[in-house]
Amino acid sequence: MSFRQDHLLGIEPLAPDEISTILDLADDYVALSRSDDKHTEALKGLTQINMFFENSTRTQASFELAGKRLGADVMNMGLEASSIKKGETLIDTAMTLNAMHPDLLVVRHPHSGAVDLLSQKVNCAVLNAGDGRHEHPTQALLDALTIRRKKGRLHRLSIAICGDIAHSRVARSNLILLGKMENRIRLVGPPTLMPSGIGELGCEVYEDMAEGLKDVDVVMMLRLQKERMDGGFIPSEREYYHLYGLDAEKLAHAKDDAIVMHPGPMNRGVEIDGTLADDINRSVIQEQVEMGVAVRMAAMDLLARNLQARRRDGAA
Amino acid sequence: MSFRQDHLLGIEPLAPDEISTILDLADDYVALSRSDDKHTEALKGLTQINMFFENSTRTQASFELAGKRLGADVMNMGLEASSIKKGETLIDTAMTLNAMHPDLLVVRHPHSGAVDLLSQKVNCAVLNAGDGRHEHPTQALLDALTIRRKKGRLHRLSIAICGDIAHSRVARSNLILLGKMENRIRLVGPPTLMPSGIGELGCEVYEDMAEGLKDVDVVMMLRLQKERMDGGFIPSEREYYHLYGLDAEKLAHAKDDAIVMHPGPMNRGVEIDGTLADDINRSVIQEQVEMGVAVRMAAMDLLARNLQARRRDGAA
Amino acid sequence: MSFRQDHLLGIEPLAPDEISTILDLADDYVALSRSDDKHTEALKGLTQINMFFENSTRTQASFELAGKRLGADVMNMGLEASSIKKGETLIDTAMTLNAMHPDLLVVRHPHSGAVDLLSQKVNCAVLNAGDGRHEHPTQALLDALTIRRKKGRLHRLSIAICGDIAHSRVARSNLILLGKMENRIRLVGPPTLMPSGIGELGCEVYEDMAEGLKDVDVVMMLRLQKERMDGGFIPSEREYYHLYGLDAEKLAHAKDDAIVMHPGPMNRGVEIDGTLADDINRSVIQEQVEMGVAVRMAAMDLLARNLQARRRDGAA
Repeated sequence: MSFRQDHLLGIEPLAPDEISTILDLADDYVALSRSDDKHTEALKGLTQINMFFENSTRTQASFELAGKRLGADVMNMGLEASSIKKGETLIDTAMTLNAMHPDLLVVRHPHSGAVDLLSQKVNCAVLNAGDGRHEHPTQALLDALTIRRKKGRLHRLSIAICGDIAHSRVARSNLILLGKMENRIRLVGPPTLMPSGIGELGCEVYEDMAEGLKDVDVVMMLRLQKERMDGGFIPSEREYYHLYGLDAEKLAHAKDDAIVMHPGPMNRGVEIDGTLADDINRSVIQEQVEMGVAVRMAAMDLLARNLQARRRDGAA
Repeated sequence: MSFRQDHLLGIEPLAPDEISTILDLADDYVALSRSDDKHTEALKGLTQINMFFENSTRTQASFELAGKRLGADVMNMGLEASSIKKGETLIDTAMTLNAMHPDLLVVRHPHSGAVDLLSQKVNCAVLNAGDGRHEHPTQALLDALTIRRKKGRLHRLSIAICGDIAHSRVARSNLILLGKMENRIRLVGPPTLMPSGIGELGCEVYEDMAEGLKDVDVVMMLRLQKERMDGGFIPSEREYYHLYGLDAEKLAHAKDDAIVMHPGPMNRGVEIDGTLADDINRSVIQEQVEMGVAVRMAAMDLLARNLQARRRDGAA
Repeated sequence: MSFRQDHLLGIEPLAPDEISTILDLADDYVALSRSDDKHTEALKGLTQINMFFENSTRTQASFELAGKRLGADVMNMGLEASSIKKGETLIDTAMTLNAMHPDLLVVRHPHSGAVDLLSQKVNCAVLNAGDGRHEHPTQALLDALTIRRKKGRLHRLSIAICGDIAHSRVARSNLILLGKMENRIRLVGPPTLMPSGIGELGCEVYEDMAEGLKDVDVVMMLRLQKERMDGGFIPSEREYYHLYGLDAEKLAHAKDDAIVMHPGPMNRGVEIDGTLADDINRSVIQEQVEMGVAVRMAAMDLLARNLQARRRDGAA
């Protein structure tokens, strides 16, 4: 087994063989989740704590189900209605939970870098469930698994990431992962929603959807992150949909068998046409959700194995 | 076993033998819940998701405990503090959860018909935990189980349903169930709180409690649904209690061994006298709560068996 | 086994040998929580319900983890967003949950005495997780376990409890427990934050930290309970820290090996210097949290054994 990490803080530290190891194991967990008995005892005896400092229906639910199906004792912390209000710091909260001996700590936080910082203070495995504009590694892994299963491979594909790149940790993690696996990536969107220093990323940049989508294998739409836009250009939804919302006409520029992705939750009629989103011949949006549970099961399983190996070595 | 449903959306679609099948199995689960070991593995390997779009302490708790005692992996979705805020539709939320492969989806929603709609979009068993003014089938089933255990039968009884009939899905589901089982039903309450088209329901209607309760076996009080009254007549609590609040004096018109029911939570001194509510010789309000867990265990168990049979057939 | 209680409502009713019994069993659970397999089946088949009428990240999390690791079916009630809003009383809510056959009911409530009242209405074991200014017994037990493990004994120690004594149920439960075990207790703080009738408590009272901490073995800081101060003297945080905030200089008056405790969550720079709080040579604040889970596992385990013995006797 080639997975050598103590934490899953981002895609950045992962080698291509580690990514493949996660995806291979996730394939097994997809099969399990489709079977009559979805419950295993892989994490029996271990404790998983979900610390969500930002609300997220789907990501928290996905991690919670993943842990429960693996047989862990799973606890969600409602951290907006908590001690945080009483003036406790992030680190104090983390140290408190750490003292309760969790094995896996799943953390979402509005500030970039907060999860890295936290991982240095605790002695369990930390999974980043999204930190500010930085990374959202399990989203990139589930996207990768979806692509690999639909396209039969995860390299030498032409992939367009479209929309609000600047504010998106999803885009960032995907860019890193798909780059590591040697795909051709295009960024498509208005210049105001492109990150600075984009030249260094080594990908092609398009302002026009027709050009940007030409002959791509995968069209990856992003959510408009209005909540993360501070000042700057905020497009009207109508104008945005006209120029950048994905519909059948714009999709016609991509390959005939191109797949359509969206991390959810969707703004129908803003980033994507509702009919296209529901078209099971093109849209893989539901598959992405399904792969999410499997990828999180795989990541937690691998991290727990490494954690227990380290403990045995430490004890020896 | 004669239970042929894919979902439990209401009492309407159930045949009398199906109702009896649920209640018979629920009797077994009452015995289990009173024993030293309340935990079974009947739903082991399956996933139950509770989607509550309206708050409800007791109903959600009852479903949650039912699922946990059956050994399912149970997840609650806090859907008011969720993606709903980000503009996602009910169906998108349901499709997202469906992609995570739940086996049982328990749904409460403020709009009548929302749960039916949702059940057509997912490929698991859906249980209606209350939708608008439409149905609340597990409440009617738990009421039926309570009556059957206390009265020794569930037919040819005289039952008064009293109070705010118009706004009550509890009344509606009970009316249908008790009618199917061939009981004599009286509706008692102010004309302003009676539903329109009441003549077609085939039950006697009374405006006066003394007349309405005369010689009945069961007095079923309802909660004043102030939150569902939009305009129209809103009685003062004092006046309402005087005319329709159940106390020992009004109850004296019923049979000597008549039982008193309330779905809770009670407004003491509004719908019912506090002392009477606590009188264990007449009030079966605590039994109703106990029966609630058992009836939900039975319904989920039966639905899961049908689901797994369908899957085996589909796979074969 | 010498633990004869039906409930854990406070430290007051406990005999010294019962306290020792809890702490001895908790020592075993500390070892378990540090091992590779933290999950037992001690409470398998039993149901634990956490009813928190006040928010508390750490106490609720600690009880939840304790129950899950013991194999119970655990349910949290979000009681602020619940039927309480619909006008239901505490007792009605408790009776409703009681009808669902919990075995262990963990209750936090803002009113002193509310948990005692509730325990008289239900037929399961009740654990007080903090009621108003009255008691917080598991906090005192976890503090006692921390002291016993660090000092090698729990008697004939000199212990200073410092700060907002008047509003603190933590102080109250600790005073009672440490008094029962024959320690010398000093209360240190401004007269305005001392409870009335303090002379009867049989402990020394100091207004000055230097004098109060002189040669003590244990310095127990308290949280400023601003939320419980109604009128009266509210010190400025800066002034409070100057006079009563624990720092290295004030701590120098205590014994060289004195340990520093705080129940959390801390206000750094108000009750305690941040550097000192993190100094693992003096501060045992993280150990307190760790002991919390173990002490709650022990208390719930012992109460469940007594409950089942009573049930067997009742059935016999």
